[in-house]
Amino acid sequence: MQSHQFFVKHGPYPFKEIIKAINCTIDYSHVEDFEIYGVESLVNAQENEVTFLNSGKYKDISLKTKAAVCITSLNLSKFLPDKCIKLKVRNVLLAVNQVSRMFYPGADADYPDLTVMDSNQFKKKYSKVNFGKNVLIGKNVQIGKGTYVGSNSIIESNVKIGENCIIGSFVIIKNSLIGNSVNLKDGSKIGIKGFGFIAAKKKNIRTPQIGKVILEDGVEIGSNCTIDRGSISDTIIGKNTFLDNHIHIAHNVRVGENCIMAAQVGISGSTTIGNNTVIGGQAGISGHLKIGNNVKIGGASGVTTDISDNCQVMGYPAVPLRDFVKMRRKK
Amino acid sequence: MQSHQFFVKHGPYPFKEIIKAINCTIDYSHVEDFEIYGVESLVNAQENEVTFLNSGKYKDISLKTKAAVCITSLNLSKFLPDKCIKLKVRNVLLAVNQVSRMFYPGADADYPDLTVMDSNQFKKKYSKVNFGKNVLIGKNVQIGKGTYVGSNSIIESNVKIGENCIIGSFVIIKNSLIGNSVNLKDGSKIGIKGFGFIAAKKKNIRTPQIGKVILEDGVEIGSNCTIDRGSISDTIIGKNTFLDNHIHIAHNVRVGENCIMAAQVGISGSTTIGNNTVIGGQAGISGHLKIGNNVKIGGASGVTTDISDNCQVMGYPAVPLRDFVKMRRKK
Amino acid sequence: MQSHQFFVKHGPYPFKEIIKAINCTIDYSHVEDFEIYGVESLVNAQENEVTFLNSGKYKDISLKTKAAVCITSLNLSKFLPDKCIKLKVRNVLLAVNQVSRMFYPGADADYPDLTVMDSNQFKKKYSKVNFGKNVLIGKNVQIGKGTYVGSNSIIESNVKIGENCIIGSFVIIKNSLIGNSVNLKDGSKIGIKGFGFIAAKKKNIRTPQIGKVILEDGVEIGSNCTIDRGSISDTIIGKNTFLDNHIHIAHNVRVGENCIMAAQVGISGSTTIGNNTVIGGQAGISGHLKIGNNVKIGGASGVTTDISDNCQVMGYPAVPLRDFVKMRRKK
Repeated sequence: MQSHQFFVKHGPYPFKEIIKAINCTIDYSHVEDFEIYGVESLVNAQENEVTFLNSGKYKDISLKTKAAVCITSLNLSKFLPDKCIKLKVRNVLLAVNQVSRMFYPGADADYPDLTVMDSNQFKKKYSKVNFGKNVLIGKNVQIGKGTYVGSNSIIESNVKIGENCIIGSFVIIKNSLIGNSVNLKDGSKIGIKGFGFIAAKKKNIRTPQIGKVILEDGVEIGSNCTIDRGSISDTIIGKNTFLDNHIHIAHNVRVGENCIMAAQVGISGSTTIGNNTVIGGQAGISGHLKIGNNVKIGGASGVTTDISDNCQVMGYPAVPLRDFVKMRRKK
Repeated sequence: MQSHQFFVKHGPYPFKEIIKAINCTIDYSHVEDFEIYGVESLVNAQENEVTFLNSGKYKDISLKTKAAVCITSLNLSKFLPDKCIKLKVRNVLLAVNQVSRMFYPGADADYPDLTVMDSNQFKKKYSKVNFGKNVLIGKNVQIGKGTYVGSNSIIESNVKIGENCIIGSFVIIKNSLIGNSVNLKDGSKIGIKGFGFIAAKKKNIRTPQIGKVILEDGVEIGSNCTIDRGSISDTIIGKNTFLDNHIHIAHNVRVGENCIMAAQVGISGSTTIGNNTVIGGQAGISGHLKIGNNVKIGGASGVTTDISDNCQVMGYPAVPLRDFVKMRRKK
Repeated sequence: MQSHQFFVKHGPYPFKEIIKAINCTIDYSHVEDFEIYGVESLVNAQENEVTFLNSGKYKDISLKTKAAVCITSLNLSKFLPDKCIKLKVRNVLLAVNQVSRMFYPGADADYPDLTVMDSNQFKKKYSKVNFGKNVLIGKNVQIGKGTYVGSNSIIESNVKIGENCIIGSFVIIKNSLIGNSVNLKDGSKIGIKGFGFIAAKKKNIRTPQIGKVILEDGVEIGSNCTIDRGSISDTIIGKNTFLDNHIHIAHNVRVGENCIMAAQVGISGSTTIGNNTVIGGQAGISGHLKIGNNVKIGGASGVTTDISDNCQVMGYPAVPLRDFVKMRRKK
């Protein structure tokens, strides 16, 4: 069970209470009631947890889930193990939303941590850390030796930061685990609530966001970037990956190692990006895509499909580079 | 008369002094002099105020204006009521600029509010507000009960904030009225001076910006967004509309209710957007456009024309979605 | 010799030590050893400094360089004066990186200035400056009379700011020279480390960034912009140029006078832009380009080639405006 340490988890709840919460009309009276301890992704869910499946894309991992219960649709339920109880609903995300709210009430909002205190209050604890002025630090924070934290920055409770990091000014870090030798430039916001919602005609509904941000060793994040915390799983930036300024990384994105992204790139939710990938400035990548290793994406491209290893793409929508050049010639 | 409470208004000025200021050469000696109390939009101007008309797009509202005087061009003057005195000039915006500067000297700059003080100074006044550390608050501010304000944020003078809002860290709010249950994530800047100027060969001229920002109940603004104050009228975001990170909303934009905008969207000045509209990440919308209700705009689209209710568009420039798909197939 | 006053320069180093550092295998035993005092651009390098040439684009200025030594490639060495010692290497940028690190160790990182102190500590020195609350100021800073600095902003050591500037809140200025009457809106970051690196399969290498930012008189920078310091030469924004919000200006960019850029524009490294140029929102310009005077670039364009004076372009990639219109008609 992955630890969502940044939120107090409620529960456990009886299975039949969960059925009631999602307005599931199927008769489960033959099933003996049991307790459910949390909501998790297909991969991370344990035998006493509920998970969800909302796309055929994930059938390989869904077939292996250990979850006791899975919220899914009629069509997708065949991609789940026999022993998993399938709760078939019309609107999977809405049902997941309702269950998540039971375990993590309040997690659809981005409450500021009011317990932070001036770093001068912790002189002994952080004697090997180099602080600027007016740095605010929450409870149960760890910061490794040799790390710099610039003036006016805020490290919220439960964040862990490794050694020899360089954190600029006006940075906020929350809901995050930061490796060693990570550089975060001025004004970046790490671990903020993701943009999770369910569109509804009268009033859109916010989705609880309970994942973390993990920045691995050697990562560099440019100025004024935003890295959203994961919704249920985590947002991860791999070792030695460098991001320029004004970059937006949405919830659940996983970027590989040693990648480079130029300024103003935007990556939509749940997309994964391989190692050694280079992304030109202002490029955008749609959600739930898989971008391979050693991929090169031209500046200002709009990527709307998966991209295999070693490909070069460009355009809006992005196509293989040689097709893009050919199309330009025809005009 | 709309109250531009965030600036001290000068005047009133005699009508003939205004004619002189804009270098209007038409002979008005037959008109008896009278006092003018302000400059306002076509809709908001009262019988003792001056307004302006610079585009045939606004002829429906211009015909109903109550303004005593309207700065306009030769061609557009026919779209104004008979009783309205038409000041016909070559460069309408330049003339409006000159008159605005009389009433609001200094309003073309974004002076910081130097009167803000630590929220600890106001413990009694805001006893039902939850403050982080180092929050700065100006004069004559109202904040409703149950609202959170994260550390290091600034609320400048005369701002009103409703109940149960969640305001993150590194947020600045100025020249704004904020409803109830509004969420502003870390690093967003609300009510800053709009980008108003008149391009001139030797030295561009800044335009006074005297409008407000109004965020209605339930609005969510993502991290590192910028919402500019209106130039003469206001910038308004309607109820329950959600904005992701890095979004730019220019002066005088009006967004309807229950809309969703993904990250890095930019909306240019004076554009209006209907209700329940969904805008994909990195899309841009030109200025002075009218986007209808229930419109869907694809990611990274560049919208350069009005869009009717219920349409789906995509592309650069944006076209109806099925045309976009057809064009892609032809290539 | 240009003064990189924002970093302590190491050295001088014997020429033969530099050869060793870049792993140059050519035999220079016949050259008598001498001391090298720094690494500089082709234009700024003096007789006791090393420079570099990595593109035929710069042959006009490379032929006039005064540098004693130039790191370059086999093909480009012919564009250098006879008396200049040519160090021919396979990877010019990697070699420059290695030499820059000798003179400026640590300059590939963006260490915060820990010496900043509350502006109240400097009451006498800045008696004619108008400060908000919690303004932090470093050592050896100059700020002209009549300038405003908004609350929570940071001016790092050695920065010079002219008279009558308006600096908002949450602004950081470092490694910069700011002229008179400059306006910097809330949340802008001026003089941060540029995004310099050498892509390498296993681990990308950061490049030292030792240049300045120069903002000339009358410049306006919008909210949440980022202006990177130059890598070796400087990043310069010319007189009376206005930038809207969320704009990214990369290292070594030079923007002319009286230009206008709408929101979310991105300019890549080392590009130069002439006077009176207007750039629409969300447009992007590739690196190392030359954009002329009086150029108009349409919103969301992607500029990938040089543009001559007085041209209007639009599209992705950007083409002359009339070609763009023609292409749209054909579809």
